Amino acid sequence: MFTVALTLFTGTALAQGPLPSWNEGPSKNAIVEFVARVTRQGGPDFVPPVERIAVFDNDGTLWSEQPIPVQLAFALDRVKAFAPQHPEWKDKQPFKAVLEGDMKALSEAGERGVLEMFMATHAGMTTDEFTKIVTDWLAAARHPRFQRPYTELVYQPMLELLAYLRANGFKTFIVSGGGIEFMRPWAERVYGIPPEQVVGSSIKTKFQMRDGRPTLFRLPELNFNDDKAGKPVAINEHIGRRPIAAFGNSDGDLEMLQWTTMAGGTHFGLIVHHTDTEREYAYDRNVTLGRLDKALDAAAVNKWTVVDMKRDWKVIFPFERH
Amino acid sequence: MFTVALTLFTGTALAQGPLPSWNEGPSKNAIVEFVARVTRQGGPDFVPPVERIAVFDNDGTLWSEQPIPVQLAFALDRVKAFAPQHPEWKDKQPFKAVLEGDMKALSEAGERGVLEMFMATHAGMTTDEFTKIVTDWLAAARHPRFQRPYTELVYQPMLELLAYLRANGFKTFIVSGGGIEFMRPWAERVYGIPPEQVVGSSIKTKFQMRDGRPTLFRLPELNFNDDKAGKPVAINEHIGRRPIAAFGNSDGDLEMLQWTTMAGGTHFGLIVHHTDTEREYAYDRNVTLGRLDKALDAAAVNKWTVVDMKRDWKVIFPFERH
Repeated sequence: MFTVALTLFTGTALAQGPLPSWNEGPSKNAIVEFVARVTRQGGPDFVPPVERIAVFDNDGTLWSEQPIPVQLAFALDRVKAFAPQHPEWKDKQPFKAVLEGDMKALSEAGERGVLEMFMATHAGMTTDEFTKIVTDWLAAARHPRFQRPYTELVYQPMLELLAYLRANGFKTFIVSGGGIEFMRPWAERVYGIPPEQVVGSSIKTKFQMRDGRPTLFRLPELNFNDDKAGKPVAINEHIGRRPIAAFGNSDGDLEMLQWTTMAGGTHFGLIVHHTDTEREYAYDRNVTLGRLDKALDAAAVNKWTVVDMKRDWKVIFPFERH
Repeated sequence: MFTVALTLFTGTALAQGPLPSWNEGPSKNAIVEFVARVTRQGGPDFVPPVERIAVFDNDGTLWSEQPIPVQLAFALDRVKAFAPQHPEWKDKQPFKAVLEGDMKALSEAGERGVLEMFMATHAGMTTDEFTKIVTDWLAAARHPRFQRPYTELVYQPMLELLAYLRANGFKTFIVSGGGIEFMRPWAERVYGIPPEQVVGSSIKTKFQMRDGRPTLFRLPELNFNDDKAGKPVAINEHIGRRPIAAFGNSDGDLEMLQWTTMAGGTHFGLIVHHTDTEREYAYDRNVTLGRLDKALDAAAVNKWTVVDMKRDWKVIFPFERH
C-alpha cells in the first residue's frame, strides 16, 4: 500500500515537473538548465551542496512592492498609531505629512525625512516587542488594491523556485534592503527561509538586563543599509561565501548580481521584470522606488535571465490558483 | 552483508557512547541529560530541531588562547612581515615594540595601540587576499609550547560535543570576539562549522569593481566588536533566534550566556574552566586576556555547568589520542 501510494505521488510530481507556475520558455529553461549543470555529479560545472548558496532580494522579487513598499506602509500606520503620544507631530514634518495623508509633502521630506520616520517607528522597544508589533500589524493590514494580507502577495512562481532550489541542495537566503527584523517574523512561514538566512537592513540594538531578564533594546540609529553596494558587504558578513545564484528586480540588486556572477565559476543571475499591469504592476525605469534601469542594461551585457512576468508566469499570486 | 556491517557499526558506536573523551561525572551528565530532554518528542522540554541553536565562543572554548590569542600571534607576525615596507615602524609604537619583541611596551600601548596594529595588519587588501594570507600563515605557524599548527590545538572533547549536538539536530554556531574572516577559512574543516555559521568581530569592507571583477576591499575601520554585550547583539543580527545552549570560557561570554539562559524556556549554559597546567594552562581571575571572573560567579548563581578541564577531560587535544 505504502509503496503504491508513494509511486502514485512520485508519478504525479514527475508528470507536473518542477516550477508548475512557470510557462515554458527561455526563463524557465535557463533555471532548469543551470540547476541541472551544478547538480550533475562528475560534470564540469558540478558545485558541492555546501556551496550552493542562492540569494534573493525581497521587495519586488519575492513579494509585491507597489504601490509602496510594505515596510513603508507599516511605518505610515505606526506614525498614525503613535500620534496620540506625539502631539508635536501635528506640526512637524515628515510626520505632519503622514497624518494628513499628504504623500507629496512626504516625498519632499526626502531620504532624511523618511529615515527620521523609520527611526521614530522602528526604535524605542525591545526586539521581542518589535516582533510582536510586526506580527500583529501584518495580521491586520490589507493591501490597498488586492485587499489581502501582504503575506499573500508573494509570487507563486518564486515560491516554487525557492522550493525547487532547496530540493536540489541549495541553501536559500534573503538579502534585502528591507529591515532584517521586519522580515524574520514571517519569512520562515511564508518562504521557508529561517531567520538565520534572512539578511537585511538594521538599526543598532543594545543589550540590557531588565528586571533580571536579558533584552535587546532597539536604538534610533541606523546600523546597516543593505542596499546597492551594501549587499555584497552584507553577503560577505552574514554568509561568508560567494553565492552561485542571485535573484533581484531593481538597481538596488545590481552589485549583488555583479558579486555573484562576475567572479568566475558557475553562476546564475536573474531579474524579475514587472510587466503585468493587469495582474500586478508594470514598472522599470520610470519609478523612484524599485527602479530597474542600470541593472536592466547590465542584464543584457552579463546574460542574466530577465523574467517577463506577463509572459513567463502562469499565475502571479498563490490565491489565483483557487 | 550490508545489514550485518551496519549492525556491527551501530553496536560499536553504542558501546562507546557519545562524548568518549569526557570522563563520567556531573559535566558530561548535564550535557547528555539536556540533549535528552530537548530531543524527547512529546516531552515537556522538547524543542523542534529548527530552534536547536547552540553558540560557541572560540578562543579558550574551542581552541587554546594561551600564551597569547592566536589572532594576536598572527598580527605580530604580520607586523614583522610588513615591516620592510614600513620603515617608519622602527620608531613608532606599538610597531616598534613588536619588532623589538618588547611585550611590556606592547601592553603599555593599550587597547588603542593593539587596535592600530590590528588595522595595519588586517586591512588594505581584498577579502579573497586576506583569506589566502590567513590560510598560508596557519599552515606555517607553530604554537610556541606545543610546536604544532594552531588548528591542531583544538579541544578534542569540544569537537565531540559539536558533533554530538549536530547528531541531535542542533545547528552549531561560533560567536567569537575573534575576527570573522580570520576564522572562516578553516572553521569548516576543523570544527565542521560552515562560514555562514561563524559570527565574529569585523572591520568595514567596501565593494569595488577592479578590472571588471567585483571585490570587497578591507578598510582600516572597526565594524563590530563581537565581545561581551556585543555577543547578544551579534547573535540577534546573524542568527535571529535566541540560542538554547551557549558555551564560553571567559567574562567576554557572560552576556551571551545570560541572553541564552535567562529568558525562560529550556536552555543550557556551560563554561570551560582552564585548570590543567600540565596538559594545557590554568587561569581564570588572574589574567587579563581571557579572564574568567564575573562569569564564574554568575555560573554558580545560574547553575551553568562549569567544566573542570583537568577532571572532566580524558584528553585535551586530538593528537593525545595517538
